[in-house]
Parts: sequence; structure tokens; C-alpha cells
Amino acid sequence: MSTSADSRAAATETARPVPVRDRYVYALSEGDAGMSALLGAKGAGVAEMRRIGVPVPDGFTVTTAACVAAMRSREEWPERLWDEIQEHIAALEQRTGRTLGDLDQPLLVSVRSGAARSMPGMMDTVLDVGMSERVAEALAAESGSPRFAWDSYRRLVQMYGEVVMGVPGEAFERELASLKDRRGARQDTDLTTEDLKQLATVFRGIVRQSTGHDLPDDPHEQLRRAVDAVFRSWDSPRAQVYRRLNTIPDDLGTAVNIMQMVYGNKGSTSATGVCFTRNPATGARERYGEFLLNAQGEDVVAGVRTPRPLAELEKVLPDAVARLRTVMDQLESHFGDMQDIEFTVEDGVLYVLQVRTGKRTAAAALKVARDLVAEGRIDVTTALRRIDPAQLDQVLHPTLDPSHHAVPLTHGLNASPGAAVGRIALDADGAAARGATGEDVVLVRWETTPDDIHGVAAAQGVLTAHGGMTSHAAVVARGMGTPCVAGAADLHIDLAARTVTIGGAVLTESDVITLDGSTGQVYAGALPLVPPRITDDFSTVLGWADDVRRLGVRANADTAADAARARELGAEGIGLCRTEHMFMAPDRLPVVQRMILADDPTDRQAALDELLPMQQSDFEQIYTAMSGLPVAVRLIDPPLHEFLPDLTEQALLVRQLETDGPAERLARERALLDRITRLTETNPMLGTRGVRLALLHPEIVVMQTRAIIRAALAVRRRGIDPHVEIMVPLVAFAEELRRVRELVAATADEELARGGAADLGYRVGTMIELPRAALLAGEIAEHADFFSFGTNDLTQTALGISRDDAEASFLTSYARSGVVPADPFATLDEPGVGELVRIGLGRARRADPGLEAGVCGEHGGDPASIIVLDGLGVDYVSCSPFRVPVARLAAAHARLAVGA
Amino acid sequence: MSTSADSRAAATETARPVPVRDRYVYALSEGDAGMSALLGAKGAGVAEMRRIGVPVPDGFTVTTAACVAAMRSREEWPERLWDEIQEHIAALEQRTGRTLGDLDQPLLVSVRSGAARSMPGMMDTVLDVGMSERVAEALAAESGSPRFAWDSYRRLVQMYGEVVMGVPGEAFERELASLKDRRGARQDTDLTTEDLKQLATVFRGIVRQSTGHDLPDDPHEQLRRAVDAVFRSWDSPRAQVYRRLNTIPDDLGTAVNIMQMVYGNKGSTSATGVCFTRNPATGARERYGEFLLNAQGEDVVAGVRTPRPLAELEKVLPDAVARLRTVMDQLESHFGDMQDIEFTVEDGVLYVLQVRTGKRTAAAALKVARDLVAEGRIDVTTALRRIDPAQLDQVLHPTLDPSHHAVPLTHGLNASPGAAVGRIALDADGAAARGATGEDVVLVRWETTPDDIHGVAAAQGVLTAHGGMTSHAAVVARGMGTPCVAGAADLHIDLAARTVTIGGAVLTESDVITLDGSTGQVYAGALPLVPPRITDDFSTVLGWADDVRRLGVRANADTAADAARARELGAEGIGLCRTEHMFMAPDRLPVVQRMILADDPTDRQAALDELLPMQQSDFEQIYTAMSGLPVAVRLIDPPLHEFLPDLTEQALLVRQLETDGPAERLARERALLDRITRLTETNPMLGTRGVRLALLHPEIVVMQTRAIIRAALAVRRRGIDPHVEIMVPLVAFAEELRRVRELVAATADEELARGGAADLGYRVGTMIELPRAALLAGEIAEHADFFSFGTNDLTQTALGISRDDAEASFLTSYARSGVVPADPFATLDEPGVGELVRIGLGRARRADPGLEAGVCGEHGGDPASIIVLDGLGVDYVSCSPFRVPVARLAAAHARLAVGA
Repeated sequence: MSTSADSRAAATETARPVPVRDRYVYALSEGDAGMSALLGAKGAGVAEMRRIGVPVPDGFTVTTAACVAAMRSREEWPERLWDEIQEHIAALEQRTGRTLGDLDQPLLVSVRSGAARSMPGMMDTVLDVGMSERVAEALAAESGSPRFAWDSYRRLVQMYGEVVMGVPGEAFERELASLKDRRGARQDTDLTTEDLKQLATVFRGIVRQSTGHDLPDDPHEQLRRAVDAVFRSWDSPRAQVYRRLNTIPDDLGTAVNIMQMVYGNKGSTSATGVCFTRNPATGARERYGEFLLNAQGEDVVAGVRTPRPLAELEKVLPDAVARLRTVMDQLESHFGDMQDIEFTVEDGVLYVLQVRTGKRTAAAALKVARDLVAEGRIDVTTALRRIDPAQLDQVLHPTLDPSHHAVPLTHGLNASPGAAVGRIALDADGAAARGATGEDVVLVRWETTPDDIHGVAAAQGVLTAHGGMTSHAAVVARGMGTPCVAGAADLHIDLAARTVTIGGAVLTESDVITLDGSTGQVYAGALPLVPPRITDDFSTVLGWADDVRRLGVRANADTAADAARARELGAEGIGLCRTEHMFMAPDRLPVVQRMILADDPTDRQAALDELLPMQQSDFEQIYTAMSGLPVAVRLIDPPLHEFLPDLTEQALLVRQLETDGPAERLARERALLDRITRLTETNPMLGTRGVRLALLHPEIVVMQTRAIIRAALAVRRRGIDPHVEIMVPLVAFAEELRRVRELVAATADEELARGGAADLGYRVGTMIELPRAALLAGEIAEHADFFSFGTNDLTQTALGISRDDAEASFLTSYARSGVVPADPFATLDEPGVGELVRIGLGRARRADPGLEAGVCGEHGGDPASIIVLDGLGVDYVSCSPFRVPVARLAAAHARLAVGA
Repeated sequence: MSTSADSRAAATETARPVPVRDRYVYALSEGDAGMSALLGAKGAGVAEMRRIGVPVPDGFTVTTAACVAAMRSREEWPERLWDEIQEHIAALEQRTGRTLGDLDQPLLVSVRSGAARSMPGMMDTVLDVGMSERVAEALAAESGSPRFAWDSYRRLVQMYGEVVMGVPGEAFERELASLKDRRGARQDTDLTTEDLKQLATVFRGIVRQSTGHDLPDDPHEQLRRAVDAVFRSWDSPRAQVYRRLNTIPDDLGTAVNIMQMVYGNKGSTSATGVCFTRNPATGARERYGEFLLNAQGEDVVAGVRTPRPLAELEKVLPDAVARLRTVMDQLESHFGDMQDIEFTVEDGVLYVLQVRTGKRTAAAALKVARDLVAEGRIDVTTALRRIDPAQLDQVLHPTLDPSHHAVPLTHGLNASPGAAVGRIALDADGAAARGATGEDVVLVRWETTPDDIHGVAAAQGVLTAHGGMTSHAAVVARGMGTPCVAGAADLHIDLAARTVTIGGAVLTESDVITLDGSTGQVYAGALPLVPPRITDDFSTVLGWADDVRRLGVRANADTAADAARARELGAEGIGLCRTEHMFMAPDRLPVVQRMILADDPTDRQAALDELLPMQQSDFEQIYTAMSGLPVAVRLIDPPLHEFLPDLTEQALLVRQLETDGPAERLARERALLDRITRLTETNPMLGTRGVRLALLHPEIVVMQTRAIIRAALAVRRRGIDPHVEIMVPLVAFAEELRRVRELVAATADEELARGGAADLGYRVGTMIELPRAALLAGEIAEHADFFSFGTNDLTQTALGISRDDAEASFLTSYARSGVVPADPFATLDEPGVGELVRIGLGRARRADPGLEAGVCGEHGGDPASIIVLDGLGVDYVSCSPFRVPVARLAAAHARLAVGA
């Protein structure tokens, strides 16, 4: 059983390509699950159900190719399309014995959108097509239920008016609500036949008034225009946005499913509902569903009435529910995965309208995958394939309770996942002070700088107006696992007034807000959160991924806490330990500043001597957390002025002191201003940093090397096994690396000799983060024990885009308008940056075939990038601790993609 | 005759490589002109002279290989070296019948440095080796001239003391001057034998006192230590600096020439001098030289006495001078070029001590080359090879009169050649205002910005404290042909006090300074200048270059005046017309600012409408100057905030207005501050500029395109033939170019249709200035009619170095310490940036084999880069107007290098 289920499941997942065919319409009997590219997922699913004996309404499907052809020629349909539809309608009429517009046995049809990839709620559907006043009369007579007939008619007018004729839906809703008020009706079902008849007339009036046209009575005209409206809904703004967010190509088109109507609104033995074969929130193996008696499908989705749990339906319609249970089991077996099923019961008879793979939380995805493997339904490979690595993040952060209905104040970039609730703090000091008292705060800034790090650390979440996915706030927050929404453009901070205006609302530091870092949305007040938990399912599934993947996965971690967390999440070492974050701690910054501002070598050395034991102690803790695993420490990278106050702020301070300051203070601040001015760079990203700093100030390299080696010696005495790697950043010329390596080696060897531990190995490598370094990788490899591609900076320089500036301005617009397929700082730019990695790796390995090479940019935690990097042949990726599980799974996916 | 002369000349120019030999010393009779790599230029020249019968002193040469071996093993000489020297000394003693240290017929020798490539004055020489008190007595007896003997002895003590034993030269000079004072002697020659004897004793005392050691009397010890001192002088700091400036490798070593002394100080029938076979300042065909009677060679060079013109020597020593004339003609014929000759006459007998190709001014180089071709001595190819393209700059700018003896106040980078004299102006407005009154000013700034352009234009020269060879000041100044010294680090400007401190001197705006943009030196006061002139020689030689070169040469020009000058200097079009400089004119900047600050599209469009006719008028003038030749206009490139005031300045202004400003003004300036803050970027180089700006503000592209096309239509009506090229900057993605091209084409075609001139062609191309663009050149080429490699930005991004910041800081130190072979912004980084050009060109031409590709970075005017670019296959280079002749000649050199 598992074999056949698997093969079918595979078939739905890798749909056959759209063939060139000579027709635009397929009967249900002509389709199967493999034809979703042509028939849409819904059409293919219904055809497949029909094939395996699940009861579905009769009908046919207009292909996605028809939609594409119709959209391409703007308002014109392809020549044969309407003829084909009419032929299939005629065949349907013959099979059902009912006829469109007939006054004895009228045929009504549903016209439903259905793209190859599910876009729930994004496109349109029209039910009850074929209705008119005269048909309603006929249906009332035929069914013996005038209420059902007029309810169906008012539904047609409402949906057709809105979807096809463009009448705002609120006009109908208002009228319905007002009628219910007048009648004292709690629910739609409390309205009488007469009410519904009257409502239909009023609705027709609304259509006429809004559009200047009558709703057409001709069922064929209704059908044609309904199909066309579904086509057009493919290009609606919301559908376009959805496709962009989900990277669905714009040229796929939607299929249109035309099926005989089945009626859940035919009285108390009729119902409509949605069910899942397992619990989509937890993954528990229990049927889960909701229904409404005497209703049509849209009522469930629209939340007009509150649906009731499936179990209750059993009491009313036991036979139908028994049949539904059988069908649920059959469909889960058939597709080998948890299914999401739409059904209708008409007069006690079950029809399934739609089947699809059920969306689920990350926790449920893990449990279902593990259970299905345990049940022997799918193999491990299939289980791994089914879990979206990006979704794993969810499991590791508190998330917003999905049941909330709050309307966001604004939104920005979903920079660091998870949800956070806290009172606003407008500066880092305030955040730190209030955080220390146990208050939950959200740090809200124009943008953050390294100066704000204590505020970020103390906050539940970070919200910035400026900066993108890899802005300082975003990177730091992700590194800490703190939720962050970055670059929320309509955020205005007035520091003087201590207020922040978000999307029109003026808030102060006593107001609470909620951030959803997973979606980028910002809400007023405190929304309910769901806590994270690492489960057995998680460990089991990630264990499978580890068996499959080739890529190593390390973490970017600067503290022992980060390192410990990373190891817990499966990191196999530290790929990037940034030492400058250690410099930013409030107790160290003054020493660092003294070092920078020192006027003579003696003062500078004194400051460095003071920093050495601090750094050593950090390294000792990190080695301890990573005992037995490699720790790649990057020598200091940022330009020195990043450790000094901001130029403009300092100029303002001096200006103020000029009028009222004590002379001594003024002189001191002026000297500092002078130094900042001299150190300030037009383009710090391209300035005196990395190895350049190391060559200008070898004394810093010496201090850092001593701290790195002394720490290793110290922990070894305590039984810890340190694997030391020293990484030189921003190398462009082989000679830079040669010189710094010489200095590092001389210093390290001196320390090892002094410690009597010449056997303690260490490796010296370099970051490849400049295009020149990639091109000259062969030469550079001669001086490196390993490479680490810094794809953040490589992206900045290869593309000429400053990540601190660009995402809030033109890059956002580029992504929105399709100039770039994705943010290149989030997903590796394969043709550009990927090409540099390919060239660099190739040249380096020609020089040194065994050279180990990792990637430590943000891309190391991005699934799409990991697949590319696996293909390029790097040895490992390194990402923030919370992305480690994502990377482990994505690395497994990369191998499975190659195997497939 | 010309054939044999040419072949010999070629031999001296392309010296044979150093062979692996089994010995370190060569007799003169074993050498020839082709052995300069082994024997040094001096040793090979003397051997060659001996070979062709020119009278030279007897001797031998210690090879450069010996120096390299000795230096490599630090203080140790190669094993056989001393033995070999002693063997050759013995042979020399036998040939001359004189013996080192002999008290009857003592042999004295000169020990002279001589590298393969001339490094005049950089290394050391010791004369009169073999002298001691007893030898002096003997020589006095033998020669019958005690004065000559003791003069030679005191010379030995002085030179040996300084060169070998490290005694500061001033100690001897002071003593000599004091003795002359006491004796009332005007010149050395006025001193008596007794004086000289006493001086030798005093000098020995100085040596003893300074070093704690006696000067050795043993002539063999003297010789050995003198040779060693010459070896060591190869690695003296000044020699290292000279080699770096002249890109001479550090591992060549110097040869040491040991020759029997001949004495120009043997009385009134003896003399020493230097002569040129033609005038080195003008190139005129006249023998030119200077001499001193009764002196040794170092007296001429050291300027101890003022030498007299050669013609006067004829009266004193007619036979020797007749012989010298014959030798001069012989040597010029033999080597086929103007020669620089050192000679000594001893007792009426002529000896030639050295011959080398004569250094000459650029004007002389052109004249000599042209004359030698006219005289049939060399062919055109040889003539072209002999002229250094870099030197051509000299001909086009006023230069400092080389006879000045002023000591510079400080020095910076020689950013734009030529000399300038003017009164200091500390801001651009002041410079412009004072310049307008006819005052000569030198603009002195921390650094310049586009705001300063009117000040640069009005100034005779520009001096900045910050920025490098391609800083704003340097680029703009070179473009205008204005001399510029950039990045003079010890320049401190106090704008409040209106003073500038340069190397200790405090100057105000009433002080005059002189800049030498060719050397980077800065002087107090007004130094005499020599005016430039474009001569027939210039035109003739550049015409030859044009016949040889393959590369086209265009100019970077933004104004009609620049364009006209460029055309005069041989430019074949404009490769880069920057439109933003047009935006900076004082009458336009307010309109540009209004455009940027506009709150709604209507206001923005109004400002653009105002700018359109201004830009159109600029283009009309440029097309007119370049009629019949292509003009590549680059669409606006810099980020918009460059057109707004500086952020810090504006913050200070607002702060000030907050205390005492009118409310309305405060509000306005605050709004402006807010806008500047929003537009200000962390790394503007990598920010919203170029095509990114074009896509964000298509209305600017439309305006510029209209101006470009309307101008073409307008000038065509006046009989001008415009060749319009529109260039899109900073493209990283093909899609960017596709969109902008579509917009440009739609606008241009509309204008052409309106003008009834659909036949007026225009081309749309792109800059390739980002690594990604080079890698994706194949895709990008599909949307481009041509490419222009912007190697400035390509260098910045490929190397990750901001040219505005780096040169004043780490890059200077990199060049000094040899991390980089040359400033990559001045000379193309062939392995990195050159590789990107190679990849880009290859991929583009695979997509479009006929694609035209130029280079418009600063490298387009750099000879070394031009040779690389010629080899890479670009079609043309574009450089600042004054570099056009340099580029024409360098492009010819590139072809000759391939042919050789």
C-alpha cells in the first residue's frame, strides 16, 4: 500500500508539464492527479477522486492554457474556447438529464478557479450559475423547497454581482444584515422564503444601481462571463502579491472548474463542511473538521455562521458521516499525506468538492511526517521532502496565536521570526534599563547601530523604520533569536516628543505593541502568543535529514549562550565568531575607545592589554560550549569609527558646549570630533576594515591571537577540546593574507611554546568576500588552511548594493516590480554571486584540491541558497543558531533534489 | 648606418637576461652593451665604449648577481667573490704597472655603483680607494704635485667616511667651509697643499670621533668595504623609494665598477665634466655640457663650484675638446640616441667614465625623436618606443622652472599635473568670486565635493588634505587640466580662524603658494613657471602613434570647452559626458534641489521642465564641438543627496536656528534636514544611484533623453553632424537596462517623430562597472548597442575599496609597503579588475560578436593600463582631455609591444 501511495503522492508533487494540446476543455473522466499543471490542482484532484470512486459532482475543467491564452490577448478569448465549453455543457446536460435555463429540470453549475499551485482565497468562484427568477421558481417547484431555491438565487445575485460585475461586496452584506435586524433573525437560516425572495430583488437593484446594468438572466451569458471573471481574477492585485510572496510564476494561469451544483442549503438533511484527515495544528492522528447545516461552501469560509465540529454532524447525518470517514481514509491512503477535504451533503448524500494536501503548522508537519513513516505509508525521503525547511523556524519561536483577528497597524520586512509583545522603548538605554527590571519592551528605532546592542539584547523584539533583511537590527536580532520587523516605512519617530507614529496611530513609551517577525506585521496592544517547543518529532526528522545531507552545518555565534543554543540545535561547530560584538559590551567599549584614541603606542598597548583577558574569557566560554567542534574566530572586521560616537551627534554636542560648556570638556569633545572626522569614511563598507585594519594596527592582531590561543590553552587544562580556527576578513590580495598569517603564526607559536603545548593545532584561513578574492582564489589558497565565503559582503560588492541602505529604498522596489527575482541578501544571487563562488572554489581547489570551504553569510540559513551552495560544492554553511535546523533540512533537500 | 645604429639601440633597451654564470667578476674586455642586466648600465656602457675604441680607464665589474647573493645572505659575501676581485686587481696591477698600496707607483681605484636601470644619485660611489697618508706622500713624489695628492687623500677620507663608515656628510662640509673661511678661500682650489693635508688629518679625526674607529689604511680592506657599502646602498631607504616610484623590481641588485682612477684634479691641464650630445631641455641639435677645471667628478654633481659651459674648455684644452667632440658624435651614432656622457681630462688626456641615454624634457624628447627620424638614424617605431607616454603630460601644462631651489612645505599626491601659483582660497565661493576679478587663487580644502565645482573651475590649482588620485578634486581637476595636489596629510584647515597650517607654517588667504601637481609638492610663495606649448614635434610624433595604434582614444568631457580641447588634442569622440556636473552649476543647483525636494509629481515635473532647456543647450554646444564624432552621454549617476547640503552642516544650522531663528525658516530647514536624513546613505557608492535612480525616477530619464535628442535635432538644422550615444550607468541586472532602454527609446522616438527626423540615429549602451555586470555581460549585451567599462567603479567594487577614503589611509600604506604593486585606481589591477574585463568582454562578444566596448575609467589615460586594455581587446579608451595624447602614444606602445 505504501508503495502505491508514495508513487501517487510523488505524482501530485511533481506535476507533469503542460503539454501542447489541441483543446482547452477536459471532462472529469479525462483527468488525473498528474495533470495539475493543465487542470489546476483542484481540477486534477476532483478528476483523480472520480477515478478512484470518491463521489464528486459531474463536470469538466477549462485548462490553465485557456486562461493564459485569454489573458495574453487581453479581452479576447481563444477562438474555439467557447465552443468547447458549450459542447461540454451539452454533454453534462445529457449525462445529468438537466438543462441550463430549463424550467422543468434546470441545471445549475459552480464556476471555480483552481491554479496548479494552491492560492487559497486569492482567486474567484461563482456558484449557482444558471439561476434567474424564472429558474428559481422552477427549482422551487421541482425541489419542493422554495426557500432553498430563493436562497440559491440571492446567492447567485450576490456572488455574480460582486465577482463578475464588480459591485462592492459590502453593499450586499449591509442589506443582508439590515434585513436580519429587521426580522430579528440571528442567522441567515432564520430568514423566510419571502425574505430571501425580497433580498434577491433588492440585490438585483443594487447591481443595477452600481453598474447601470441588469444582471443577465441568460444562463449561457452568465456562464461565459463567470469563466472570464475567474480568468481575470488570476491577475487581480491580491493574486499578484500572493504569487510574488510565494514565488509562483505569473504565467501559469488558473484553470476553471465547471461542475453541477450540489446543494448543502437544501434543508436540514443538507450540509457543507471542511475536514482534515489529521489535526493540522498538532498533527495528531484524529479526523478533524467543521460543518454548517443547510449552507453553501462559502458560508464556512466566510465565517457567516460559526461552524460546528464534525463529530456533531454524526448525530444528524450518521450515514453521510460514515461515508465521509471512509472517504477521508481512502484519500489519505491514496495520496499518502494528510488531506484537506471540502464536502457537501445534499439530502443525505455525500459529495466531495475538493481535495488537497492539508496545510499544517511546523509542529504538525513534523509529527505527521514521523507518523506516516512509522505507519509505513511513506519512506523517510518522502517525509523529508514534504517539510518546508523555511517553516521550521516557527517551531523555535513563540508565535502569534493564529486565531487572532487583529488588524495590523503597519508592516515591514519579516526580518527575524517569532512574535514579541512589549511596551515601546525608543532608545537602547531605556530598553536596557526597563528590561533589567523585568519589563517586556520592544525597541523601536529609526535603525539600530552597534551602540544599541544592549537594548536589542534586553528587548523582546525590535522594530525599525529603516534597513532591510540584513540590516544591523535584523542580523543581530536573528543572531539572538529576537523577533524583528525591519524597514517599516511608515513609522515616524519623534525623539523630542518621545512618540512614534505608526500608520496614523500616535503611540508613546507606555503603549504596548505586538510584532510578528514571521510576517513583518505590527499590531497595537498585546496579542496572544503560542510558546515554542522542541519535540521528539523535531529531533527524529532532523536526524533523518542529517543522514541524508552532505553539507556541514555550523552556526554564527559570538557568545557562549549562542554557541550552546547552536549546539543544541545541531550545529557542528562555529563558522563565524565575530569578535567585534565582544568589543561593544558596555564595560569594554570605553577601553576600546581608549585604544582607538590613544595618541601613542604605549597608551594603545595599555588599552589592548586590558582587553586581552576579556576576550580570552569570552573565547574560553565559547570553546567550552563547542568542545570537540571547530570554532572559527574572525579577527576584528569593522572600521574603527564604528566604535566611536556618531559624527553629527558629536558635532552638535561640540556646538552646544561652545555656548555653555566648560572649556576643558569642550576641548576634549573637540579633539574627539576631530578624530571621528578623520576616521569617518564616505563608504565605510569599502573602507579601512578587516585585514586592512590588521595591517595598519598589527598590535590588535597580536592581542586577539594571544587571547584566542591562551583561551585554548586554558580550557584544555580543564579537559575541554578546543578546535581553533582563525579567520582573516576582507582579503583582496594574497599578500595581505600572507603577512597577517605570518604575524598570527608567530604570535600563536610563541604562546604555544610558552604554554608548553606546541601540539595544540590551530588553522588560519580567510574570508572570501570580495570579487577580487574569488577571482584570485588560487593565489590566496596558497596561504589559507580554509576558506569561508562571506556571501553578505560578496553580494554587496558584486552587485554594488549597500545592504544597510538599499533594501529600504530601491531594492524593495526592485523586488516588488520584478527587476530581481528575490532579495539577493536573503536568497543567493546565483548567476552573479553564485558564479563568483563557483569561480573562486574552482580556482582554489585547482591550487589545493583538499581546501575546506564554508559559507558564513546570511545565505547559509536560506533553503533556496543552500540548494545552490550544495551544488557548488562548498563543504559547510554557517548560519544563526535558530536557522541551524532549517539549514540541516535544506541541506538534505539539496541532496534529494540531486537524487531525484 | 641607421640600421646598425637601430639594432644596437634595441640591444641596450632590451637587455639580455642575467645568465647563470660561474663567476661574479668581469673584465671590461669581456663585456658589451647587451650585458647591462649583469654588469649594470654603467659597466656595460664602459665595456661597450672600450669595445668601439672610446678611451676609458681600465678596470672590471662586479656583477649584479654578486650584489643579490651578498644581500640575500645579509652580511655574508658569496664564497669566491673576494678571491675573484683580488685576481682582477692583480691583473689590473699587471696591466697598469701600478700596485694598490705601493709606495712607488700606487694604484688608486674608483668604486662606483651601477644598476641595470639608471637610478641617478640613489646609490653610492667611493673614489680614490687605495689612499693613505703614506700613499699620498708617494703619489705626491711620483706626480710631482703634492697638492693633487693631498686633495685626493682628503677626498678619500671624506667619501669613505661618509659612504662606508656612515659619518654624516655635514661634519666634513662644515669643516671644509670653516677652513675656507679662515683662509679667505673662495673655492676649494684656493686651498693650499698644507691646508689639504691638515684637512685630511681633521677629517680622519672626525671619522674616529664619530665611529670610534680609525679609517683603515690597508687598501685591500678599503676596497672590500667600499664594494660592500655599494652593495648595501641598493637597499638604502632612498633607493627603495626611487625604485617604487619608478617600478623597478627590488631584486635586481647593483653592479660595482672598479676602475683605475683618472684625475681631473691634477692641476690646470686636468678637468672633469658632463655633456649631452643634444640640448636636453629643448632637444636642439647642439652639443651641450659643463666642466670644472682641476676637480673630480663629484664636484660637478654636488655643485661645490659652479661649472662652466663646455665651449670655454676649448680655449684651455683644445685637443681634449676636439677628441671629446669626436667621441660624442661617435657615441650618438653608435647608440642612435642622445647621450649623456661623463668625462675626465687628466693632464690633457681625455677619458670617458660613463655613457647613458640622456634624460630630457618631454619637449626635447619629441624634438630629438623627430630629428633622429629625419636624420635617418632611427625608424618611426624606434622613435615612438623611446618616448614615455606619461611624460607627455608635461608638454601640456605650465611647469615649475626646474632651476628653482625652493624647499617644499609639504607634499601630497601628484593628482593632476602642471604647476600653479595663486593666493589661498579656503572655500569655493571665495575662489569663484576672487577668480572672477582676475586674481590667481589656489583652492585649499579638506576635500572637495560637487558643490565646490565653481571654485575648482575658477582656481589655478587645487590642494586638498583628504582623498587620493581619483578623489573628487583629482578627477575634476584632471578633467579641467587644473593642477592638483591631493591628500596632503599634514594640512590643517581652521575655517573659523580662516587659516591653514601646512607643515608647520600658518598661512592665511592673503598668502601665495605654489603647487607642483606633477610631483605633489607644495611651496610657499610664487615660484617661476615655464609655459606649455603644442609644437610641430608634438603633432608629428603623435601622428606616427595614430598610424600604429589599434585602440581608439576618446575623451571624458562634460562641457563644450573640454570637448573642443579634447578634439584639439586628438580625441576621436567623447567616451563619457557626465550630465551631473551640468546640474551643479550655481544657476541650476537650486532648480535641481527643487526637483529633489518636490513633494508632488507636478512640482517635480515643473523643475524638470526648467532643467530641460539648460541641459539641451549644453548638449548642443558639445555636439557642435564634436561634430561627426560620437558623444556618449551618461544618464544621471550620483545619488540625489549629493545635490543637497551636507547632513552635519544642516543639523548644525537647524540647531542654531532652534535658539535664535525665525520659526518659518526653522521649519523649512528642519524639513530639509529631514529630507537629507532620509536620502543620506551609509555607503553612497553602493546606494541609490545610476540606473537605480533612473528606475525610481523615470521622469528624470525622460527629461534627459528629451534634452539629448532635441539638442541633436537642433544642431543638425545648423549643419552639425551629431552622433548620439546614451549610456546607462551602474547596471547589475539585464532587466534594469531593458527597462530603461525601453523608456529611453520610447521618449527618443517620440522626439524624433515630432522633429520629423526618424533617420537621426542614436545608440543606447551601458556602463559595465559592477562585477555582476561583467559576469552577466552576455545577458546584458542583448539590450546594449555598446559597452563602456567603468573601471573606476569596477575597481572599487571588485577590490572593495572606496576611492574617496582609501588612498589617504590604508592604500597609501599598501603601496608604500608593497602589498600592492601600484595604486589600483591609477594603474589597472590586471589580475582582478582586468580579469573581470576579460570575462565580461568574452561573454558579451559570445552573445554579440560585433559589440563595441570602451573603457572610460581613469585607467583610460594610464599607459600601463592601456597596454593591458589593448591586450584584452577593448575598442577604445576614454580619458580626460589632457591625457588624450598620452593615451594615443601608449596605445601605439601597446601595439609595438605585441609586435616586438
